[in-house]
Amino acid sequence: MNILILNGPNLNLLGKREPHIYGHQTFEGYLAELRLKYPSADLEYFQSNHEGALLDKLHSRGFSCDGIILNAGAYTHTSVALADAIAGIAAPVVEVHISNVHQREAFRHHSYLSPHCAGIIVGFGLRGYELALQALLGQAER
Amino acid sequence: MNILILNGPNLNLLGKREPHIYGHQTFEGYLAELRLKYPSADLEYFQSNHEGALLDKLHSRGFSCDGIILNAGAYTHTSVALADAIAGIAAPVVEVHISNVHQREAFRHHSYLSPHCAGIIVGFGLRGYELALQALLGQAER
Amino acid sequence: MNILILNGPNLNLLGKREPHIYGHQTFEGYLAELRLKYPSADLEYFQSNHEGALLDKLHSRGFSCDGIILNAGAYTHTSVALADAIAGIAAPVVEVHISNVHQREAFRHHSYLSPHCAGIIVGFGLRGYELALQALLGQAER
Amino acid sequence: MNILILNGPNLNLLGKREPHIYGHQTFEGYLAELRLKYPSADLEYFQSNHEGALLDKLHSRGFSCDGIILNAGAYTHTSVALADAIAGIAAPVVEVHISNVHQREAFRHHSYLSPHCAGIIVGFGLRGYELALQALLGQAER
Amino acid sequence: MNILILNGPNLNLLGKREPHIYGHQTFEGYLAELRLKYPSADLEYFQSNHEGALLDKLHSRGFSCDGIILNAGAYTHTSVALADAIAGIAAPVVEVHISNVHQREAFRHHSYLSPHCAGIIVGFGLRGYELALQALLGQAER
Amino acid sequence: MNILILNGPNLNLLGKREPHIYGHQTFEGYLAELRLKYPSADLEYFQSNHEGALLDKLHSRGFSCDGIILNAGAYTHTSVALADAIAGIAAPVVEVHISNVHQREAFRHHSYLSPHCAGIIVGFGLRGYELALQALLGQAER
Amino acid sequence: MNILILNGPNLNLLGKREPHIYGHQTFEGYLAELRLKYPSADLEYFQSNHEGALLDKLHSRGFSCDGIILNAGAYTHTSVALADAIAGIAAPVVEVHISNVHQREAFRHHSYLSPHCAGIIVGFGLRGYELALQALLGQAER
Amino acid sequence: MNILILNGPNLNLLGKREPHIYGHQTFEGYLAELRLKYPSADLEYFQSNHEGALLDKLHSRGFSCDGIILNAGAYTHTSVALADAIAGIAAPVVEVHISNVHQREAFRHHSYLSPHCAGIIVGFGLRGYELALQALLGQAER
Amino acid sequence: MNILILNGPNLNLLGKREPHIYGHQTFEGYLAELRLKYPSADLEYFQSNHEGALLDKLHSRGFSCDGIILNAGAYTHTSVALADAIAGIAAPVVEVHISNVHQREAFRHHSYLSPHCAGIIVGFGLRGYELALQALLGQAER
Amino acid sequence: MNILILNGPNLNLLGKREPHIYGHQTFEGYLAELRLKYPSADLEYFQSNHEGALLDKLHSRGFSCDGIILNAGAYTHTSVALADAIAGIAAPVVEVHISNVHQREAFRHHSYLSPHCAGIIVGFGLRGYELALQALLGQAER
Amino acid sequence: MNILILNGPNLNLLGKREPHIYGHQTFEGYLAELRLKYPSADLEYFQSNHEGALLDKLHSRGFSCDGIILNAGAYTHTSVALADAIAGIAAPVVEVHISNVHQREAFRHHSYLSPHCAGIIVGFGLRGYELALQALLGQAER
Amino acid sequence: MNILILNGPNLNLLGKREPHIYGHQTFEGYLAELRLKYPSADLEYFQSNHEGALLDKLHSRGFSCDGIILNAGAYTHTSVALADAIAGIAAPVVEVHISNVHQREAFRHHSYLSPHCAGIIVGFGLRGYELALQALLGQAER
Repeated sequence: MNILILNGPNLNLLGKREPHIYGHQTFEGYLAELRLKYPSADLEYFQSNHEGALLDKLHSRGFSCDGIILNAGAYTHTSVALADAIAGIAAPVVEVHISNVHQREAFRHHSYLSPHCAGIIVGFGLRGYELALQALLGQAER
Repeated sequence: MNILILNGPNLNLLGKREPHIYGHQTFEGYLAELRLKYPSADLEYFQSNHEGALLDKLHSRGFSCDGIILNAGAYTHTSVALADAIAGIAAPVVEVHISNVHQREAFRHHSYLSPHCAGIIVGFGLRGYELALQALLGQAER
Repeated sequence: MNILILNGPNLNLLGKREPHIYGHQTFEGYLAELRLKYPSADLEYFQSNHEGALLDKLHSRGFSCDGIILNAGAYTHTSVALADAIAGIAAPVVEVHISNVHQREAFRHHSYLSPHCAGIIVGFGLRGYELALQALLGQAER
Repeated sequence: MNILILNGPNLNLLGKREPHIYGHQTFEGYLAELRLKYPSADLEYFQSNHEGALLDKLHSRGFSCDGIILNAGAYTHTSVALADAIAGIAAPVVEVHISNVHQREAFRHHSYLSPHCAGIIVGFGLRGYELALQALLGQAER
Repeated sequence: MNILILNGPNLNLLGKREPHIYGHQTFEGYLAELRLKYPSADLEYFQSNHEGALLDKLHSRGFSCDGIILNAGAYTHTSVALADAIAGIAAPVVEVHISNVHQREAFRHHSYLSPHCAGIIVGFGLRGYELALQALLGQAER
Repeated sequence: MNILILNGPNLNLLGKREPHIYGHQTFEGYLAELRLKYPSADLEYFQSNHEGALLDKLHSRGFSCDGIILNAGAYTHTSVALADAIAGIAAPVVEVHISNVHQREAFRHHSYLSPHCAGIIVGFGLRGYELALQALLGQAER
Repeated sequence: MNILILNGPNLNLLGKREPHIYGHQTFEGYLAELRLKYPSADLEYFQSNHEGALLDKLHSRGFSCDGIILNAGAYTHTSVALADAIAGIAAPVVEVHISNVHQREAFRHHSYLSPHCAGIIVGFGLRGYELALQALLGQAER
Repeated sequence: MNILILNGPNLNLLGKREPHIYGHQTFEGYLAELRLKYPSADLEYFQSNHEGALLDKLHSRGFSCDGIILNAGAYTHTSVALADAIAGIAAPVVEVHISNVHQREAFRHHSYLSPHCAGIIVGFGLRGYELALQALLGQAER
Repeated sequence: MNILILNGPNLNLLGKREPHIYGHQTFEGYLAELRLKYPSADLEYFQSNHEGALLDKLHSRGFSCDGIILNAGAYTHTSVALADAIAGIAAPVVEVHISNVHQREAFRHHSYLSPHCAGIIVGFGLRGYELALQALLGQAER
Repeated sequence: MNILILNGPNLNLLGKREPHIYGHQTFEGYLAELRLKYPSADLEYFQSNHEGALLDKLHSRGFSCDGIILNAGAYTHTSVALADAIAGIAAPVVEVHISNVHQREAFRHHSYLSPHCAGIIVGFGLRGYELALQALLGQAER
Repeated sequence: MNILILNGPNLNLLGKREPHIYGHQTFEGYLAELRLKYPSADLEYFQSNHEGALLDKLHSRGFSCDGIILNAGAYTHTSVALADAIAGIAAPVVEVHISNVHQREAFRHHSYLSPHCAGIIVGFGLRGYELALQALLGQAER
Repeated sequence: MNILILNGPNLNLLGKREPHIYGHQTFEGYLAELRLKYPSADLEYFQSNHEGALLDKLHSRGFSCDGIILNAGAYTHTSVALADAIAGIAAPVVEVHISNVHQREAFRHHSYLSPHCAGIIVGFGLRGYELALQALLGQAER
């Protein structure tokens, strides 16, 4: 199974930025653990702070991979373009948020992306990516 | 591990009510599968259409079980009382929704419960309960 | 024809509570008149102040009776759960309000139930139940 | 009994316009049936697309007939002038809507007329006019 | 001086409609008094329940009379077309309301017409027309 | 091709009213130019300040002409009745606005008509009618 | 007749402040003209930038004078206290605004005072005070 | 004097739930103190998490006791039914909140119950029940 | 114990202004009764219609007295400055309202002061001051 | 004439993405047709998913070409930066939308760009680009 | 250069009130430092808790000094009168806030004064007054 | 001291775009002056129209420079991502706006960035950058 993990703006700072919210682990460290634990899954990883680069990636991989795990960070709340891209591609997209966005500012309670996603996982920390992967793997099994 | 699965109003109609949204399987059927697949987890199940009964159950089990999987159905969007109960008990609560509530009426996009939950899982169908279970079991492992 | 008349919270106080709005007749008195006037209709009556009890009743009778006349009282304006139940059952539901809710507080102008009902009758006093009955009987004729 | 049936804009298209919402029968056909069924009621009928003509009619008949059945169509949602006219005349007005307006666009959920009407009947198709007539006839009986 | 007094919907009911708000005098009676008191003013009077007729009159007289006293009744709160007509004509328009609209429903607190009027007079009963006339006569003097 | 050009309230003042917004040309002058330039198109023209007259015209021609170019003026922003008429007739309607309504008051940014139109053309001055005509002619070619 | 003219904040700057909105005449100059023209009226004048001083004056004169002409300036839009004072005193209060507040910022369209005033006069420049005086004098005549 | 103290959802957790907001004392402990201090008052106590049970209790005691002290907890903010019950019964109801609800989430600032209560006491901790009792006792004295 | 009772705008009219809302007793009369009943409490009284004077008094006494009973009248709903003063001083402030503000205009339902007060007492008439005093005295006892 | 056609995010998916909304033709195919039909127009084409790249292009060509046809896709509804760029450049910009955005989600009804554009064309499918071209060519002719 | 520093309500408590927000230094202490550092600037200082006194001062000095540094405290968010005064005087006004108001309650995010000020400086602590002074001195240099 | 000056979208057009708002000087010209005047400050300058490039720059320099002066242009009002970046980095950020944004469209009155900035300077023209620099240099001195 071919899975794209797509991280949006500021997630490159993970482990460095606001650790009381996002924890101390880098995403690369977490990804290595995930690959070890799910050797059969082919995990591609891409992070960008550029909305356009995230769109380009969704377009280029959205018709060829088996599923996408997307944490669009702040663009979740502001990007109609990403929502349109998710609606336009073929692969199922699982939306993940590390923190419980519903405990934070009101503008973080709304996601333009959610209506177009196959499922949404919020608030489990980095663990959320694994749950999303389990969801996509399980979906494939059937 | 002792896990309470708590279902709110109308979820007793599962398999019968609006199958284009909720599917054809009954929750009891699904629960049997889940127990088979996760024999080590002690799964208690309770459903009620009474907000008060859900509150009573959260109070009686919320200090003694290891985790709660809660699909409060329509009360998700209207019950401050359930939110207060979740905030008041000791066990972590995972909020689950079968359908992608963000594709439905606007009043279903807001949950009084989310800010008080350990995590939220939306839109994966009945599969969401299993993901919630995996989240709670994983949390225990650590 | 088998018709369930379902009354919600505070309607047990009819004849006693705010008579300038709701009149001096008790519902039981009115019901007796109605049964006399429509002997061919099998009228079942249930009143509860418990949202859960109303849900239970809708579930238990909603697949077996020919129509339901529902005055959900204050729950009309606050209960997504009742709306879901109406959408989930098979019997047509006619929504009735004794007073003209549009002459009262703004929060009484919105009904969660209306979009799911077969018809709505407002402001005719107790007479509204009879009109609802005529509507359901007429519907059956066809 | 002298009853005025007053239809507002676009209701002349009935049977022709959006039949999935309004059905295939013309109002004139329906009216003929109604007159046959209620021979003792003197039913006057007037339709206009002109808000001013509806106001003129309400003024000219509103102090001399026994009741008015009003389906103001789209003016229901935009006309303060019609609301004022209803409040200003002597005859009781029953507001009727053929479709269930609460299943349609949000701006159709509000009626300027309702607070001034003797009762409101919504969503029963053309049948609603008959229920309104029964309500007015019953009111007269007492 | 050539002055047009223009009355909108339902004002033909004056003296008849809701006398606790609008008083018992007919407008025609009041107008006769006004003409007696201000013999030098040439007072033209027009009332219509038709928004279009009010527009037509504003167009036909708005470039030839010296001033207009307009009580647009309910159209005050709903008619962008009347506002556009006032903005488009040459004669100054004084907006008059008999009742104190700010003591009534919230939708009566907003006037589409006010920004385009030379002045606004509210709440003095029929007396307001005389004040408007005095304002227009005074304006002419200068 | 049979095309109806329908102009709403105050557009008879064109060339006279607020020329800094609407320009100095009368619509009749412009129409003559248009007929010369598009001799094969049979252009019927109707203007009224009466919402009801616009509705009547839409009804009488809406099932027999090939297309309608509609500038409903101020009724664009307030008339649900016109929106219903457009939805109810057979001919495609192109909505035109002379000025750029999005540079003006906020209430001019919303059109009840747009969701029911075949297309919308805004801000090109009188030129917009020609573009609408080209759109309808092109649609016919196919 | 004993009339109090009460001016609120910044009206002492009249003739000096923003003359394109308020004109070049000082209020004192205007008042002298008014006294000459209406010798029988006993005009008391008070201006203050202090909301409390305006309240004190309303209290001290509001039970002893025959009428009050109030231009509360900016406090019109923010002072519930002034509204309460007007409601609490015996003398009728006429609200005056020099400029057409409905052509200015949205927050100037709302007046806390209007519901409690005997009448409202807006947009006639300083002339508005004279109209208010005529209104109060006329009221007294009857 | 016969006083009913009625506590709503989650108040059974008092002393156990969120002690930084609600303190460490159980309500039963506090009640014992209160009974000692006010021996002449006959204090009946009822707590339920069921909105329906609270309604039933208000109905059964609301026409026979001398006053009711009601802390409806979260139902304060969501229950129109409780508001209707308070309006419908004869006994005066004093609304009490332990915490200062105005320091908490915005949805806790609104109470459906307040307009129908004889008085409201907020933010004094458990002490608020005693103040309510003093208020009711004092009311009786007169 | 040293207690400051602070009354805001228009409360000097008590007994005179709108007696159907505020009763017929003057505050001075009530205060005399209160001093007699609570001889051990040193009650200082200050009333002003000036927001600034209320601020000055809060500053001068807010660090030296044992508690403040504040009825800020209309300033309750508009004064951020008073809220800041309450937050900035040392003495506990109890907010009192004579009438049930929740039965009146919507803008009276919001208090800028409440979040900073030690407690809030609403709707008990003048009796509310005594309850506030009892609350402050009780607080001191502990 | 030198015309820039500028397409925003996801428009590279045209013909591939949601064909029920956007049709089956690619934009490149359509562009070839357009160039054939309008040989005298020099059509430059640029598409990007990057807001910044669209801004860069507007800056580099906005002072040197004769007109711009812009379909900013989702950025229409979220980009103040694009609106500022349009306001800042010299070339006239025509805003085009393929679908009738007013039939879709509410957030698509607002365009930050419209107030700064020379005209807006909505809902004619790809045909809209040709109408925009005709508008720009016609503008040049004069 | 003649500069007026004007401080509004509660700023006399500086150093005493909420030091975690406003710091421990008194304004008088800070002013002495400022005068030492900028000997060529003639710094007049005035503080009042009275909105009217601030208005009086703006009027008396606003046509004779070279610039005003204004921290209106809580009146920033509620006073239209101060905004009008700033708009009406000749001297440039620089608005200063000690704390970062955008980190605090939503009602502190809006300033009635800002649109009329020459510049706004927020969040630099007492240092903001110095920056404002530098801005005014620099403006004078040119 | 190492200071980064970061300019967002359209600021490269400075001196060229809307000079009535932004003036005629280019930023490069202004920067040269600034470097001459503050030789001890090491001023790095970066401008981009790409939100992603601004984020990348904030990440790469935000942990190594002594302060950042940020004018994010239009992204100020729409970018949650930039707000998150400012919150995530170590260097203090001063927000600068050249024009007085509070005199312009309502959507420019809100900044996502302000709550996370060390201070905000608005409306002083290019001079604002110098004030920001003085603020950062002063901060360093201490």
